[in-house]
Amino acid sequence: MLFILLDYMILFLRQLKFIQRQNLFILKVILIFMSLKVSDIGEKELVRYIIANSKKITPDDAAITPFYNSNLISTCDMLIQSRHFPKNMSYYDMGFKSVTVNVSDLAAMGAKPLGFLLSMAIPKNLEVDNFKEIVGGVLKACDYYSIPLIGGDTNEASEIIISGTALGLCDNPLMKNNYKKDDLIAITGDIGLAALGFEIDDLDSIYVKHALRPKARINEGQILKKYGATSATDITDGLASELYEIKKDGFGFMIHEELLGITDEYKNLASNLNLDYLDLVFHIGEDFELLFTISKENLEKLPIEYKVIGIVSDSDVIELTLENGFVEQIKNKGYEHYVGE
Amino acid sequence: MLFILLDYMILFLRQLKFIQRQNLFILKVILIFMSLKVSDIGEKELVRYIIANSKKITPDDAAITPFYNSNLISTCDMLIQSRHFPKNMSYYDMGFKSVTVNVSDLAAMGAKPLGFLLSMAIPKNLEVDNFKEIVGGVLKACDYYSIPLIGGDTNEASEIIISGTALGLCDNPLMKNNYKKDDLIAITGDIGLAALGFEIDDLDSIYVKHALRPKARINEGQILKKYGATSATDITDGLASELYEIKKDGFGFMIHEELLGITDEYKNLASNLNLDYLDLVFHIGEDFELLFTISKENLEKLPIEYKVIGIVSDSDVIELTLENGFVEQIKNKGYEHYVGE
Repeated sequence: MLFILLDYMILFLRQLKFIQRQNLFILKVILIFMSLKVSDIGEKELVRYIIANSKKITPDDAAITPFYNSNLISTCDMLIQSRHFPKNMSYYDMGFKSVTVNVSDLAAMGAKPLGFLLSMAIPKNLEVDNFKEIVGGVLKACDYYSIPLIGGDTNEASEIIISGTALGLCDNPLMKNNYKKDDLIAITGDIGLAALGFEIDDLDSIYVKHALRPKARINEGQILKKYGATSATDITDGLASELYEIKKDGFGFMIHEELLGITDEYKNLASNLNLDYLDLVFHIGEDFELLFTISKENLEKLPIEYKVIGIVSDSDVIELTLENGFVEQIKNKGYEHYVGE
Repeated sequence: MLFILLDYMILFLRQLKFIQRQNLFILKVILIFMSLKVSDIGEKELVRYIIANSKKITPDDAAITPFYNSNLISTCDMLIQSRHFPKNMSYYDMGFKSVTVNVSDLAAMGAKPLGFLLSMAIPKNLEVDNFKEIVGGVLKACDYYSIPLIGGDTNEASEIIISGTALGLCDNPLMKNNYKKDDLIAITGDIGLAALGFEIDDLDSIYVKHALRPKARINEGQILKKYGATSATDITDGLASELYEIKKDGFGFMIHEELLGITDEYKNLASNLNLDYLDLVFHIGEDFELLFTISKENLEKLPIEYKVIGIVSDSDVIELTLENGFVEQIKNKGYEHYVGE
């Protein structure tokens, strides 16, 4: 679109044999049209650019650095108040979530937590008590995940920004795409609860609790690795987005709606809010459950709760068998920053 | 001050035997006065609070995690466009500096770099070319410091925020305060150049170059450790602030102005800008040189450039011998966020 417009303008310039001062203005217009904004290309494209330009980045949930006879697993994630914290979220929960999002990436690799670094920026008029509540949430989460807070740094900003780094250890990290045909696709818990929670005001609702204080599946990740899961990733940007994230050429997935465990209550609540329940389940995310693949034999031995939701095929497409028996392709749509609203 | 006001208001309430609805309003006023803001206590106090509440934090330049037969050294630092990047700084330099500030903490521990993680947030209307310039600066800095970029994540924010994490290895980290009486105090290069550079517009000036593209002393840090330096820290918040940072009970420092290498040109430029050159040298920082202590014997063998600026004493104060022979105490004043303007 931009380039068509650009071609048109150059043609226009040539026709007019423009050599006067007006040129300058028109050239400026062209330059404005030429300069792509990051919102034109989207977050995933930006990350792809960084990965393409660094030889050492692992395109997985976390970085893997060979270290003595093991691997150092490291990951960082930044949360920004206006983008990542719902309005009804407490300061304590902000702190807790900033640890969860990072530990969740360790969980997806099957790593054992080693340490957490906290870099936060807060407005200078924030009350000291609120600052302490954030730190309290961070510390409680560190205790919950048995990951010591090993370093920290504070800054001033116009809103709360919490950037965490989680470090872990792992001998054979669980990668995103080592699955084979006929492996089962499963998740470690309920899905879509947080997505609905973001739309509800009742703080006592189970959905809101999932939205405001999600938990990372750190133990489950280590058990999945031990019991031979063939891949794993955490569900942050939505089930659909993560399925596309782990898809490799020549392989496809068939998901079955009836296996997703969507309750009538869930459907009713979504319907009352004029929301499509499948859209909530597939395209919002923030559940922090693990999506994993595993052979049938290994699944039977797995000592954790799980929900099989589908199977790996060689169809090269990602599809959903609806409850009514119809099959439709799942859209590659998830939560993404920058995308023009 | 706040508490005097509070006492006064409570007295006022008692005298009036206030039990009406107005109570509510006045109680609200009291509560507002009672709630301390983070700007009331300052950044160092906030960091102290975090350290006091986590048993695992090393109160040094970077975190130390025992790891196999060595130590994993990790540090994170967040740079925010409106606070840390001068207006004339290029996108490339923003990227470069975000690596430098983190690697500098590794340098201060004498660590060998292992990997760098980049978490950045950018406005959605940022041009893609500018995004690429930031990433270009990050990658060039990683090459310069021989630290691979191992992971990254992007986000949307209203201004550019770059949070980096540097990971390193070190057998016996160089701590902040293992010095003895009569150890010499030295720095790895010139001091105060960046501080003057922030005040000058001429991009070709050596001072501006130091301000816009500082370099971390990563090799020097490793050499200092190898040659028996007794402590080291990087000069980010100003020489005075760092001297107070490394001070331990019962020890003091005597710094000599004539050893600081302040040129006449420097003094003249400062004077023309109506600035106190000693204030620039002591209280601004951002030089990223290493401040270190070492015994006289070990200093003689040191194969790097350095400048001895003073000596460790048992005076319990930090003093400066001026060029005119007078001695004055150095103020504990450095760059600090939140402090009310």
